[in-house]
This record gives sequence, structure tokens and C-alpha cells, in this order.
Amino acid sequence: MALLDPLFGWKPVDDIFAEDVTVQRMLDFEAALARAEAEAGVIPEDAATLIAANCRAELFDLEDIAAGSAQAGNLAIPLIRELARKVAAKNERASGYVHWGATSQDVIDTALVLQIREALILIETAVIAARNRLGELALKHKESPIAGRTWMQHAVPIVLGIKFAGWAEALNRHVARMRETSARCFALQFGGAAGTLASLGDRGVVIAQALAGRLNLALPVVPWHTHRDRIAEVATVLGLLIGTLGKIGRDISLLSQSEVDEIREGSDEQRGGSSTMPQKRNPVSSAVLIAAATRAPGLVSTMLAAMIQEHERGLGVWHAEWDVMPELVRLAGGAVHQLDIAVEGLEIDRDRMRTNLDATFGLIFAEAVSVAVAEHTGRSRAHELIAASSREAVRTRQHLRTVLENNEELKQYLSTEELDRLFEPAAYAGSSATFIERVISSWSE
Amino acid sequence: MALLDPLFGWKPVDDIFAEDVTVQRMLDFEAALARAEAEAGVIPEDAATLIAANCRAELFDLEDIAAGSAQAGNLAIPLIRELARKVAAKNERASGYVHWGATSQDVIDTALVLQIREALILIETAVIAARNRLGELALKHKESPIAGRTWMQHAVPIVLGIKFAGWAEALNRHVARMRETSARCFALQFGGAAGTLASLGDRGVVIAQALAGRLNLALPVVPWHTHRDRIAEVATVLGLLIGTLGKIGRDISLLSQSEVDEIREGSDEQRGGSSTMPQKRNPVSSAVLIAAATRAPGLVSTMLAAMIQEHERGLGVWHAEWDVMPELVRLAGGAVHQLDIAVEGLEIDRDRMRTNLDATFGLIFAEAVSVAVAEHTGRSRAHELIAASSREAVRTRQHLRTVLENNEELKQYLSTEELDRLFEPAAYAGSSATFIERVISSWSE
Amino acid sequence: MALLDPLFGWKPVDDIFAEDVTVQRMLDFEAALARAEAEAGVIPEDAATLIAANCRAELFDLEDIAAGSAQAGNLAIPLIRELARKVAAKNERASGYVHWGATSQDVIDTALVLQIREALILIETAVIAARNRLGELALKHKESPIAGRTWMQHAVPIVLGIKFAGWAEALNRHVARMRETSARCFALQFGGAAGTLASLGDRGVVIAQALAGRLNLALPVVPWHTHRDRIAEVATVLGLLIGTLGKIGRDISLLSQSEVDEIREGSDEQRGGSSTMPQKRNPVSSAVLIAAATRAPGLVSTMLAAMIQEHERGLGVWHAEWDVMPELVRLAGGAVHQLDIAVEGLEIDRDRMRTNLDATFGLIFAEAVSVAVAEHTGRSRAHELIAASSREAVRTRQHLRTVLENNEELKQYLSTEELDRLFEPAAYAGSSATFIERVISSWSE
Amino acid sequence: MALLDPLFGWKPVDDIFAEDVTVQRMLDFEAALARAEAEAGVIPEDAATLIAANCRAELFDLEDIAAGSAQAGNLAIPLIRELARKVAAKNERASGYVHWGATSQDVIDTALVLQIREALILIETAVIAARNRLGELALKHKESPIAGRTWMQHAVPIVLGIKFAGWAEALNRHVARMRETSARCFALQFGGAAGTLASLGDRGVVIAQALAGRLNLALPVVPWHTHRDRIAEVATVLGLLIGTLGKIGRDISLLSQSEVDEIREGSDEQRGGSSTMPQKRNPVSSAVLIAAATRAPGLVSTMLAAMIQEHERGLGVWHAEWDVMPELVRLAGGAVHQLDIAVEGLEIDRDRMRTNLDATFGLIFAEAVSVAVAEHTGRSRAHELIAASSREAVRTRQHLRTVLENNEELKQYLSTEELDRLFEPAAYAGSSATFIERVISSWSE
Repeated sequence: MALLDPLFGWKPVDDIFAEDVTVQRMLDFEAALARAEAEAGVIPEDAATLIAANCRAELFDLEDIAAGSAQAGNLAIPLIRELARKVAAKNERASGYVHWGATSQDVIDTALVLQIREALILIETAVIAARNRLGELALKHKESPIAGRTWMQHAVPIVLGIKFAGWAEALNRHVARMRETSARCFALQFGGAAGTLASLGDRGVVIAQALAGRLNLALPVVPWHTHRDRIAEVATVLGLLIGTLGKIGRDISLLSQSEVDEIREGSDEQRGGSSTMPQKRNPVSSAVLIAAATRAPGLVSTMLAAMIQEHERGLGVWHAEWDVMPELVRLAGGAVHQLDIAVEGLEIDRDRMRTNLDATFGLIFAEAVSVAVAEHTGRSRAHELIAASSREAVRTRQHLRTVLENNEELKQYLSTEELDRLFEPAAYAGSSATFIERVISSWSE
Repeated sequence: MALLDPLFGWKPVDDIFAEDVTVQRMLDFEAALARAEAEAGVIPEDAATLIAANCRAELFDLEDIAAGSAQAGNLAIPLIRELARKVAAKNERASGYVHWGATSQDVIDTALVLQIREALILIETAVIAARNRLGELALKHKESPIAGRTWMQHAVPIVLGIKFAGWAEALNRHVARMRETSARCFALQFGGAAGTLASLGDRGVVIAQALAGRLNLALPVVPWHTHRDRIAEVATVLGLLIGTLGKIGRDISLLSQSEVDEIREGSDEQRGGSSTMPQKRNPVSSAVLIAAATRAPGLVSTMLAAMIQEHERGLGVWHAEWDVMPELVRLAGGAVHQLDIAVEGLEIDRDRMRTNLDATFGLIFAEAVSVAVAEHTGRSRAHELIAASSREAVRTRQHLRTVLENNEELKQYLSTEELDRLFEPAAYAGSSATFIERVISSWSE
Repeated sequence: MALLDPLFGWKPVDDIFAEDVTVQRMLDFEAALARAEAEAGVIPEDAATLIAANCRAELFDLEDIAAGSAQAGNLAIPLIRELARKVAAKNERASGYVHWGATSQDVIDTALVLQIREALILIETAVIAARNRLGELALKHKESPIAGRTWMQHAVPIVLGIKFAGWAEALNRHVARMRETSARCFALQFGGAAGTLASLGDRGVVIAQALAGRLNLALPVVPWHTHRDRIAEVATVLGLLIGTLGKIGRDISLLSQSEVDEIREGSDEQRGGSSTMPQKRNPVSSAVLIAAATRAPGLVSTMLAAMIQEHERGLGVWHAEWDVMPELVRLAGGAVHQLDIAVEGLEIDRDRMRTNLDATFGLIFAEAVSVAVAEHTGRSRAHELIAASSREAVRTRQHLRTVLENNEELKQYLSTEELDRLFEPAAYAGSSATFIERVISSWSE
Repeated sequence: MALLDPLFGWKPVDDIFAEDVTVQRMLDFEAALARAEAEAGVIPEDAATLIAANCRAELFDLEDIAAGSAQAGNLAIPLIRELARKVAAKNERASGYVHWGATSQDVIDTALVLQIREALILIETAVIAARNRLGELALKHKESPIAGRTWMQHAVPIVLGIKFAGWAEALNRHVARMRETSARCFALQFGGAAGTLASLGDRGVVIAQALAGRLNLALPVVPWHTHRDRIAEVATVLGLLIGTLGKIGRDISLLSQSEVDEIREGSDEQRGGSSTMPQKRNPVSSAVLIAAATRAPGLVSTMLAAMIQEHERGLGVWHAEWDVMPELVRLAGGAVHQLDIAVEGLEIDRDRMRTNLDATFGLIFAEAVSVAVAEHTGRSRAHELIAASSREAVRTRQHLRTVLENNEELKQYLSTEELDRLFEPAAYAGSSATFIERVISSWSE
């Protein structure tokens, strides 16, 4: 739905999958094939030149190609027929060398690989940028106390920097994944009618090598028409990336709830408004991140389901990839783009973080108190005592410190100085600074 | 991907989700709202008239609306702003009554419901047509023997009509499901900012009633902004339908394999050709049916995952529906359309069905022989004897009948007349004719 | 994983899918089949009596049956073999009538349908109980103000009752769905080797009718071995139900966050504790609801994918249902059980609801103010003015009312009485009470 | 469902996820933690010794632990409580050091990682064995002609070895993936209450390092409680592997159809029988492979959906992993096990392969004829001519060669010798042998 592309997409990635670009990538394959075959002496040089000269998407009527696909069952057949017709208009004989030795799937798969590669370069760059920015934020906030929350409840104080470091480190792992995947998966598809390059006699592998070289793709050890693990692997890597983006979007949206309000997406006057409520500042980027993460699992599962392709060419299952894979790449692009927007504009309210830490009657300090008491009573007894004091604090709406100070047993164990120390969030950083430094240095090595 | 719409889609359904039609359905809501509110005396009559007059999609720049969605987080905000601007150009005060009392989700959801309803009417009609045609084929072939196949192995002979009856009856259940779902799910969305119609004071329900009437939608007992079971139910019903279509596509493709070749999709010279192999007649409709069935589970699972919408409006999860739901409806439309094409053009080769029955050394009659022998030996012993004879037939490449005739023990139990009867596929119809008649009469009542 | 059954499951439902009960349901089919066939004179009365007498799961070694399934590819074959052996030990001839005319899938499918039916009765009852309890809560809180939240931000005030009414009404729709589905889907499976009941000659449908009667199942118009829409429909209906349960779990968890704290799951001293943090009261029921809703979409999508079953018996796709469908039913059971626990124990803090309404500088009243101002300035101008005032309130940390009172233009439009009215949340109930009454009466009719 | 474990599972992998082993892995974490902390001087040596001595699953009542999980929301809390109780029975003070500084998720996640690692070692070994065996088969059949099939139709002749090479090479890529994933994902989880190891002061990272060393796991740069990409990545890698296994299972099942019958799963008298049809030899391994491939996409999508975990510990989404991840690993184990069985027992019928090649009126040679004719007429004209001849061959049930010989135009281009060459499948090997050698050498380097 193009209407929503500006919201969910990222133009540079969307453009890679535009109709004319898709057709151009298919034509790039045909041009490179003709040239590689001419080079190998398999087709005449002048035929190759003429074919390549006609491999320009702007010469083709896309609606005709699209209509032809309904009869043919794929886009390659009408496109190649039309290419041959154009070549034939100049040189009948040359037109016989169009698509020589190749099959529809060769051109469709290779074009898709070319598109995915282009997109992944953009996506990786954007992920690295967000990772680096988050790394800076992690360092900046390595001593900014904030409530640590588990089960969506206050747990113990942590520092904001450790959140950012966790996000950044996850992004860094995705960069590593994208690189491993790129090395394995950006491979030429070229096998001819049933994967043996039979119509090229003994010249098949030589031409394949030259073709791969021209397209700057890896030459696979064997054509992979019905072995879809390469394409599906890219899908899973994007699915994993989007999962992390969704987690970040969820965290931002939780931290920017009206009652929490510690972090907000940046905004200008237009962004995130409501049609009825003048005060609204909706977290649009978070919404896009969460939407992408809601959709990606279904798309990845489709790509996995579509791996079950029969014999030498899949029936229907291969077809299922054609809309799904570009959609997933575009979704990843859009989400990464929104992450960049969100991280760049992030507004952080340290005062509110501090206020929220204090808002729960001091209960967030209960673990620390319990650890301290445990040295006197053992761990189970301490846990029981502090759990009871916590319930009393909630019931009576008193601060936990007050309850502790009024408890006959506990005041034996807890001096005023000890309590001062225990109720100071800065004391809870633990290994945070070390972790943050480990994160940053892990990717700058 | 519009390039593939002619292959995967069905134009009448695709058109319902065209960009301008989507915008028009949203404007239909706004026009009906203004009129209902004027009728109730809540906004001035002339404002309503002016608003309604501007609710024509062709007056709007869709690219502007699309671009605005990136800031606003949905399509409604930029559309309504633009509508208000158009109205204000004529009458500043009237423009204040645009979208009065409604929220973005009211218009977006209601427009989607209107689109889905239109599409389901087309889909249901096509399903009924295919069902009826299959019913006729079932009757026609109620005595045409064909191999029954389980685990993709010959099992026992059946008749072709029972296959068609099974397909038809499944389609009939989908018709019932679509009707039940339509009655429950085609409901107005109208709740205002947070679902209470607060800004309409005590006139909320009256206006909602009038609005529902104008759009010919059910009035739900309460607005359903974050209760997505209605929309998700439609998704599941379409998912179920597509599952059946995929089963039919799989069966056709299996029956039309080169080695089976009992049923073929119709073809003309263009349809289902190959870019390299002149003899190819690829089953294009089956491919589309299977592709749809490969994709639908992921789309349905996304719609189910998207049901977890927070509080009074979902964040991101609602957004996830926007591309997914139309895609699923379009997929269903395209698949139903291909079913119609496939069923209409179906070529049936009774001779080949018969040849294939005989091709497996008579093993397909083994169950019947076993039942007959069981009357003499008990069931386990009979099963053992015939299993051994079957293995011998395969090993020695003799017909099972020959093996039986040469077996000392078995020939006591099996006379020549008995063997004639047992190796006659027509004897295997069992209750097929009854079942076929039950199927047809189940929907004609 | 049985270790987690007490957490994720509901014992009455889990018990239905216990190993011995599964085997018993299969034996129930065999017993009923033998009796129906004896009744029809197809097998001897004494054979049927002997077979039925041996159809008791406690007589069977489940490990043997399980081990046999690895060779046979399903549970029915080793079970029936063992049943025949037991019968043969008493009467060799009678053993030949075990499973007469049926196929493995007949018994496996029918047993599953029997189990699902038992479970759905329990689930429906629990859903109705929760619905009714929520209905009472809706009435009780029909005037309890609470922040309406959209995009996880304060929107406008609503009442708590409308939340409960929305949950209850969704549950009520699920009751309707379960009933429609039950009527359509609880059908006997009985078709013999390839769905024609061929080995029963012309007695097939008569016996099927009698068998259906004995098992109190509907007699389908035709066997449905590879038409899985019935089973898959049950899966989708449970998926929809779980989606609503997940939405309720999410809402409860959001409302019980430390900073919101308006609603809490009930607790005793043990429930929801932490291994380290003595103050923790984790929302265990919400976790189970959300876990179920996270898992259900994948399970439903598998059931939809498994609909593509070949010819007269699916290969592998049918097998895929065997663990998945019981798991989904059990998940639904566990989730419904936790809903009951959660709703029964719900603690509601009206004071905190009120405090939270006031916590955002009065911004939650901005829409109402805007509507009031619009009567003087038109809607766009009012929206602009109040948006600017809202931003000022946030920036200067003043209450919105104060900002309005200090604005030269706005104070012309807004008298003190008007402001009193506008900043009173009780004035925002809108149509809430009407909606709540409509909900309750919709299911009590 | 344990009843089906012998069919769907692989005992060595299933055993890793047995209840007592799961508990033992959790206790392994606790024992190693205590020892690492004693080593670092954080807890007393004798406490660590006593704790470690009690970390034996056989000392625990698993039903009690399971029951406790329903209150606590996870297995760790009741297990640790019980462990502390056992230690306290010997030494009250020592019991206070149980689980010191750790949180429930630390032990649950680490135990899961340990289990997955054990399982992946087994799975990888089995995949390599299958790959090697397929490699041998590829070499053996590098000149065995078989029909290449695309769209489930005969395309051109290929050799059987190229099928095996394609399967083997895909398996080899999965080995590479498993290794990359293992290096990245088998990482300790240890972060304490909210991921900062706060209660260990400045000793956190030192202890983490020692703990990782004792468990032979990588030390992650930062705890990863709510960053699930590691676990989810393992899920995706298994999903990809299972996808390939499903493709192999589908191919085997297609090749072993009664009408094709070129390849069969091995069988003994019991395997793959039917309850009614004595001749049946059902492909049980293929069924398990396809069943796994039908289920894996849903499980992977759940793991991806479960990545959206809130703040420092997920609510419900984390819980969703607990049954799903072990299930997926077990499914992979079972499928790999069946692949090994299937490949080891594979029966290959070269005669039937040859017969099938000839069964389609010579149409499978149409592409080659077309290429030959194209040298005289150009490619489009040749395609047209041969397409027409192919249709004539089908219509008149003559061999394509006969049609060609009778065609006035074509017989000018095609001499008898030429036709001999063109209708010889061995001439179609193309680059098959080279591809097969490339595959084998790609993994033996």
C-alpha cells in the first residue's frame, strides 16, 4: 500500500524495490549474461552488444510485462519475450541469443539477490550509525540512575547507560550477522532449465564464473534453485534485527508513558499529533518499530515455509517469496530508519528518572536492604523480614525506610549510615560502568 | 508489488483497495458522520452539506496525504486536515465541524470494514460459483474410477467425483463461515477520542445509530477500538478459505504431474509456457493457489498477534494491521479467482486414471483381497498373507492377481469369479454416490 | 514440558489430553464402531462385545504403543494391533472384526474431536464466568474516572467500567464463536481406507450414522480426511479467544506498573514473588495470558499451513497437527483459567486512578477545552491554541488550567465556571453508562 | 505429547530436555556459581561446598518444583527455595549463600543455553553424517539420468547425483551456520536482579568470568536478559535446517509416489504399514521431515515475536520461550534423525528413472531440440516450432521424435544422427559432474 510507504518505509530502500528498478535488475542479469557468453565465444559479440543495449527498463512497458506475468506465471517470461522482440527489430538472428542457456528463475533470483544486497548495505550503515549514537548515550548516562524494571515492576535501581549499552550491543551483533549472511548468501543463480546448465555443454561453469564476476556476486558451488536457505537466511537475519528494533520501540514507548515520562521521542509541532487531542505527542517512531516487529515474524515464517520447494523448481512455494521477501526488506529499512530518527531525537529527563525512583515508597531498595540484613540473619530470614516490611510500607503508605526504622528487630542491624547508603541509587550501579565500556570496546576493536 | 498483481490478484478485489478508493471510503465515513450529526442537530445543516460535498477523493492530492501520514502516524490526520482546509476555503466556521466527535481510528477502521465487506461479497459469489461447478463435476464423475492415494501412495480405488465433492463441500462450509462472520464483524467503529463519545455529550449513541444506518453497518453494543477480534476473525475465515484453496491447488498439481497426468489445468498457447522449454504447460492457477496458501498463515498469525492492543488505542500493533489485512483479502480474492479459472478449464483424462489404477501390479486391490480372505482366515492372518503377496508382486514385477493365483493357500479362498470381482475398480465405489448426493443436497436445501 | 504445566495449564483441560485419556478416546471409537457394526449385522454381536470389553486404556502398555508409532507412523496402528491381539487371546475369529472398515485416520481424528469437545465445554464455561464477573465490575465502576490512554499516552478521561465492558463484550463474542464452531466442527470422521467406506459395501452410511449417534457427534455429509477446515477452524477460534485474553493481560500489566498502579492482580504471600527482591509482587496471571497470546499465532498458523493435505490422506502435514492442536487447546485452557484467577482477585485503586488523572498538568482535559473554545474560534484555531497552551504547560511545569487562565485570548472564552466544568473528569463519561448497559443486556437477552 | 516422542523425536536430544535433566542444568548453574563466588572470596568455601553437594536433581521432588512454579511464575524460585532448605538443614548460614547475587533468569537462561549446546553438538554430527552419505551418493549417481522436474512437470533430463549434491550442499551450509551461531550464542547469562550485578559490588565481572569458565560458556560483554537475539538466532538456524530437511522429505515423497517410484525409503516388514491396506509401504521418515517443516515456521515466528521483551525482564513474552525453544530443538533432532534413517535406507531404481524419462512422448527432450533448431531459425521461431510439435505429440500420442521426423520444415534441420544425439538423456548432464565435484570439495577442504 504505497499510501503508507512514507510512514512505514525508508525511501532509499523502497526505491530499490520500485517496479522499474526490479525490471532493471532483471535486465542487468540479461545484459551481463550476454556479455559473459560473448566473451566465452558462445554467442556472437554483436548480438551481446545489441542485447545489452536494449537492457534498459525505460524501454519497456511495465504494464504489459505485468499483464504477461498472469499468463506466464512469472515476470521473466514476458520480459524476455519483449527483450527478444526489441532485439529482433534490429537483428533477427541476435534475438535468438537473448537469455541463452538461462531459465526464468536464474534471472528472477539473481535480480532479487542484487536488490537485497543494495538494501542491506544501506541498512547496515544505518544500524551502525544508531549503534554508535547509542554507544555515546550509554557513556554519557553511565551514572544516571533509573529504575530497573522486571515484570513491568520496579526491581532495583540501575543506570540509564546500561539500557543504551544493551540496545547498542544487540545492534552490533546484528551487524556481525548481516556480514556473515552477506558472504554466504549473495550468490549468483545460474543453472539453466533444471540446474545443470545443460544447454551450454561444457562451458557452463566458465560462463557462470564470468557472469558472477560481472555482477560482483559469489559463484555458488552448485545452482540453488530449490534450496532457498540463502534467501531464507537473509529473511531470518532481518527478522532478528527487527526483533531488536521492536524491543527498543517497546522500551521507548513504555518509558514515555504519561506516568513514567523519562524518555520521549523528539517532536516538532506536526509529529505525533492527534486529530482530536491538542496535547497529544504520540511516539510515531516507536509505533513503526513495533508495527514492523509485529509483522516480521509472520513474514519470516512464510519464508521458512516456502523453503519446501519441489524437485528442480518449486510450484507456488517459490511464487510465495516474490512479494514477501521485498516486503520484509522494506520493513527492515523503514524500521531502521525510524530507529535513527528516534535515537537522534531522544529527549531524556533525568529529574523524572530520579522522581520515579523515589515514587514507590522506597521499595526499589528492598533487595539491597535484604542483602545487608542477610549478613546478620541469613538470606531466607532476611528475605522474609523485608518482604513483610515491604507489604507494610504499601499498606500504610509509608516509606520503606520509615518502616525499617520502626521495626524492633531490623533496627538492630541497620544503622542510620547504613540506611543512608542503602537508599542511595547511585550505589546500585554495580558493574554497569564496566559493562558499558566492554560494550563500546567490543565493536571498536 | 503491483507488477505481480495481474498474477496473484483479482482486479475487482484489488480495485477495492486502490489508494483512491481507500481514501474515498474514509471520506464516505466523514460525509455520513456530518450528515448524521446535522440530522441530530449537533452540527449545522449547511456545514454538513459543505463537508459532504468535499468528501470526494478526486479532490485530494494522495501524495500529500501519504507524506502527511509519516508525521502524523496515520492517514486520517492529514486527510481530515486537508478536508477541513477545503471546507474552510468556502466557510471557515463549517470547517470546525469536520470529523466532529470522531477520532482517527473511527474513520480508519470503518473504512476498512466497508472495503472488506465489498470484497467479501465478490469472494463469496466466486466461491459459490466454484462450489456449484465442482458439484456438477462430482455428479458427472460419480462412477469414474481413480486411484485413491494416501501418504502419496496408491491406497484403494475411489471415484473422481468424491474428490470434487470433498472440495465442493469444504467450499460450502466457507460460505457458511463468511456469512456468520459478516453478520458479526461488519460493524461501525465510532467512539471518539477514547471510546466514550464524550465530546458528543448524551447524543453519542443516537448519532452512532444514525451513522451506522447511513453506512449500512451494524451498530456494535460498544466501540471496539482495541478489541480486534472482529477484524481478526475475518482474517481467520479468509485463512481457512485459502487453506482449502491451497489443498485443491496441491491436488491439481499432483494429479497433473507428468507421471500421473489425470487432470490438467486448461491452457491456451500462452498460459503456463516456459522461457526455455517449448513443451511446458505449467499449472499457473495451482501455483497461485499454493502461493496464497503459503502466505496466508503468516498473515493470519500477524493479525492474531496484532490483537494485543493496549488500553484504548494500540501502539504499533494496530499499525501492523494496515498493510496486512488488505493484503490478505486481496490474496483471497486472487486465489478464488484462480480457482474459478482452474475449475472452469479442468481437463480430465479418464483413460489415464484407469491406466494408472492398473500400473501398480494390482496392489491397489490388496485391501479388498485382504477383506475377502479375512472371512476365511481372520483379519490378521489375511493381512499377513496379502502383505507378503504384495511384496512378492513388487519384487518379481508380477501382477498381484498372478501371485495370488499361484499361492497354494490363497487359491483355496479365491475363486476366479471372486478375483474378477476383487480386481474391478468399479466395485470400490462404496458409499461414494451417496456421499456425493449428500454433499449436493446439503447446500441446495 | 510437564514441569511447567501447573503454570501454563489448567488441570481439567490438561487431563483431557493425558496419554491414557488420548488412548481411551481412540478405544472409545473402536468400541462404538464394533457395537454399531454389530447392530447393523455387519459383525457378530459377540465379537463386538468382546472388542468393546477390551477397549480400556488401562489394559494397554502405553510405552509399547508409543514405540510402535515410530515404525507405523501413527498411534492407531500399534494400538489396534494390540487390541486385536487382546481380543484374539479370547477369540481368534472376533479379533478379525477389530477396526472393521475403518482406517487409522478415522480413529485418530474422531478421538481428537472428542477431546476438543470436552475441553471446549470447560473453556466456554470459564469464559462465561469471567464475562459475567467483568460485567458486574463494569456496572460497579460505571462512574469511576480513569485516564483513557491511546498510543500509551493520556488521552481523555474515561470510566473504568467501560474497560471492563469492552473485555466482557469481547469474551461474549468468543462464546458465540465457540458455539457456531462446535455445531459445525464436532463431526465424526469415518471413511475407511480412502474415504468411500468401500469395504462396508452399501452399509457404510448406515453404520456411520449409528457410530455418530453412539459418540454423540454430527454425521458429516462426507468424510473429511484431508479437508481440515473443521479442525483448523477450532484452532482459529481459540486463537481469537487467546488474542483477547492477551489484550486483557497486557492491559492489567500496564495498569499495574509501579508508576501507574491502578489495578493489581490479587496476591497471597507466595504468588508472584522474586528470588531476590523481597518487595516484588509479579503479575503471574498476566504473564501467562501474554505468554499464551505470544504462542497462539504460531500454533494457529501451523494449523492453517497444515490444511494443505494431499489427495485422500496427508503426508506429514497431517502429522504436524498431532502435537500442535492439543497444545493450542491446552494453552487456551490455561489462559482462561488464569483469566478467572486474575479477574476474581483484581484489586482496584480508585484513589490512584484519580491521582494519575491529575498527574499530567491537566493535559488530559485538553480535548474538552479545545471543543469548548472551538465554539468561539472554529475547530482548527482552537486546536492550535490549546496545543500551544499544552506545550507551554509541559515546558513550564504549570497546570494547563493556569496556563489557560493566563492567556489573554483564551480567558475571553473560558469563564471560571466553564473551567470548573471542563476540568472535572466525571463530565467525561459520555456514553459510557449506556454502552455498559448495552453490553450487559446483549448477553442476558 | 510423550506418546509421539518415539515418532517425532530423537531420544538423545529428547533426553537433554527431560524434566530431571532440565532441573540438573539449573542446579549445575547454582553449583558453579557458588564455587566461583567462593573462589573469589565472596562466599565462604564451606558454604559453596555444601551448596554444590546438594545440586543433584535426584534429591528434588520435581512435582513440588512444578507446583511451585504456578505460584512463582517460574521454575527457579521454587527450586532455589528448595535448594536453600536442603542446605539449611545442614548449615543455616550456608543456605544464605545459595543463588548469591543471581536472579531467576540467570539460572533459567544459562541452563537453557547449556541444553541447547548439548543438543546442537548431536544435531551437527548427524547433519555431517547425512551430508557425507549424500555426497557419496552424488558421486555414485553422477551419470544416472533422471527427469528434471520444474513446476512438478518434466523439464529436461538431469542426473540423480545433482539432486543429492544439492541436498548435501545445503546441509553443509547449515553446518557453517550452526558453528557461527554457536560461537555467538552460547553465552553465560549472569546479571543479577536487573542486569548490573549490583549486589556483587565491584566483583561482578570477575565472578561472571569465573562462572563462564566453569560452565565453559562465553562471557558476553553485558548481560542479555531482554535481548533475545542469541536464543532467537539459534531458533532461526534450526528453522532453516528444518526447512532443508522438509525439502528433502518432500522430494523423497514425490519420487516415491506410486506412479513415479524412482526412490523409496528403506523398509522392513513393520515400517510404514497401514492398518487396512496390506500392500502399503508408507514413507514414514518423509512424513516426519515434512511434519517438522510444517511446524518449525510457527515456532520460529513465536521466538521472533517473543523478542519484544520489556525493560530489564520480559513479562509473558519471556515465558513464551520456555516450551517453544526446547520443542524446536527436539523437532530438529527428530528430523535430523529421520534424515539419517531415510538416507541410509534409500532404495534407488535406475531402471524406473529411465522408464519415466521415456514416458512423456519424448517431450522432455524438447528444449534440446529447440536449441538445435535455433541455430537454423533463431530462438523464437525454434521455440514456436517445437512448442507446436510438442502439442501435436500429446494430442496424437506419438513420440516427439516421430512428429519431428514427419515435419517438413524440421526435418531439414535435424538429421538422424542429430536426433539420436538429442534424444539421449546422457547428453544432458551439462555441468553436473563438475557441480558435484565442486560440492564435495567445498566441504572437504
